[in-house]
Amino acid sequence: MKNLLFSLFALTVFFASKPAFAQSAQSDFKGAEATKSHYKALYYLDDADPKKIKGTLRNIDNALEDVRLKGKVEIELVAFSDGVAVYDKSGPFEATLLALQKKGVILAQCNNTVMERHIDKASLFPFISYVPSGNGEIIIRQAEGWATIHP
Amino acid sequence: MKNLLFSLFALTVFFASKPAFAQSAQSDFKGAEATKSHYKALYYLDDADPKKIKGTLRNIDNALEDVRLKGKVEIELVAFSDGVAVYDKSGPFEATLLALQKKGVILAQCNNTVMERHIDKASLFPFISYVPSGNGEIIIRQAEGWATIHP
Amino acid sequence: MKNLLFSLFALTVFFASKPAFAQSAQSDFKGAEATKSHYKALYYLDDADPKKIKGTLRNIDNALEDVRLKGKVEIELVAFSDGVAVYDKSGPFEATLLALQKKGVILAQCNNTVMERHIDKASLFPFISYVPSGNGEIIIRQAEGWATIHP
Repeated sequence: MKNLLFSLFALTVFFASKPAFAQSAQSDFKGAEATKSHYKALYYLDDADPKKIKGTLRNIDNALEDVRLKGKVEIELVAFSDGVAVYDKSGPFEATLLALQKKGVILAQCNNTVMERHIDKASLFPFISYVPSGNGEIIIRQAEGWATIHP
Repeated sequence: MKNLLFSLFALTVFFASKPAFAQSAQSDFKGAEATKSHYKALYYLDDADPKKIKGTLRNIDNALEDVRLKGKVEIELVAFSDGVAVYDKSGPFEATLLALQKKGVILAQCNNTVMERHIDKASLFPFISYVPSGNGEIIIRQAEGWATIHP
Repeated sequence: MKNLLFSLFALTVFFASKPAFAQSAQSDFKGAEATKSHYKALYYLDDADPKKIKGTLRNIDNALEDVRLKGKVEIELVAFSDGVAVYDKSGPFEATLLALQKKGVILAQCNNTVMERHIDKASLFPFISYVPSGNGEIIIRQAEGWATIHP
């Protein structure tokens, strides 16, 4: 009932007043323009859920293929905590990872996670890189002007 | 037992030593000051969970109403992946979205998601905008100096 | 079947072509370099799940202890929405929070959440700070050049 009243109130306010600048801007809006010559983005993954992992890898590919960014975006993926699952040799992500790496994506794993969990590096794909900590990587990259994304 | 020992250890260290600079800073701290004349923030949503959607919309409103930012913050919401649910005509978010749009919030949907999932745009609210990809939007906005937030 | 075909395709493309620049870069990559003298990072927490809370607090400690950042990173944790659980006196996080605070971490709670939920501040740890809104804090900090992280 409270929600219904709120909805009616919001609709009334909306239709009773002249739409603000956002309305006209809205209809024309087709997304931000990529005016720079180069973009950098760090994706971070700390979840073992295959749906989340698949989604993150697909998101990276979507960024690489965005018409606004195509050919001018550099991407790094850093996994930490439960996210190490993406690099597990027994997992299903090898082909997708290799395809992303071929497109220039840096595939990095948090070394802290490996040590804390006593993970044998031989159980992870041999084509990945290690960084001291995933969290340090996020902080340094953002300070360098990289976008950071956590889907 | 290990946790208990760690707790005792941490408490001992804490009470045995003179509190560091953070302690005094802490008591005075009332939040960062908004010294700039204008702020920009991009919220992204990739989850269909109504609780997550409601929370994200409430977060946007809280940012708009923060005494430090009131009247000087510009916000965009971009939905992708499962987050498209927020714009579904059969969903419960129309009034809240319109109220946010009236406050100037740009409501954007990832076009990639629409194409990949063969979503009929007629099933989404007519008052939203489309961007080539949600992930591209995040990367470009962050490079432009927008804060990006993923509740 | 489709996945298998895709995997075969990706592998074929990979082994058939000369590895791009990323391959050689990859083997040498040891993580971003911390060339600045000072770093700042804001962690935000909006979840009551003890696993998520514990992970966030551990992530903060990992960032503080990263060999690249040790002694030159300033960190703030801001809790909002369900994340207020981290500061609940009846919860198990007091020792860990005090240990982080001793290392200089600012512990902040969204005042909006407290008001919206009619939370008695006496039920939260006395050593925390309050900010007008968690979302405002994120936006202002990012505009000031702080990295923001949501594990």
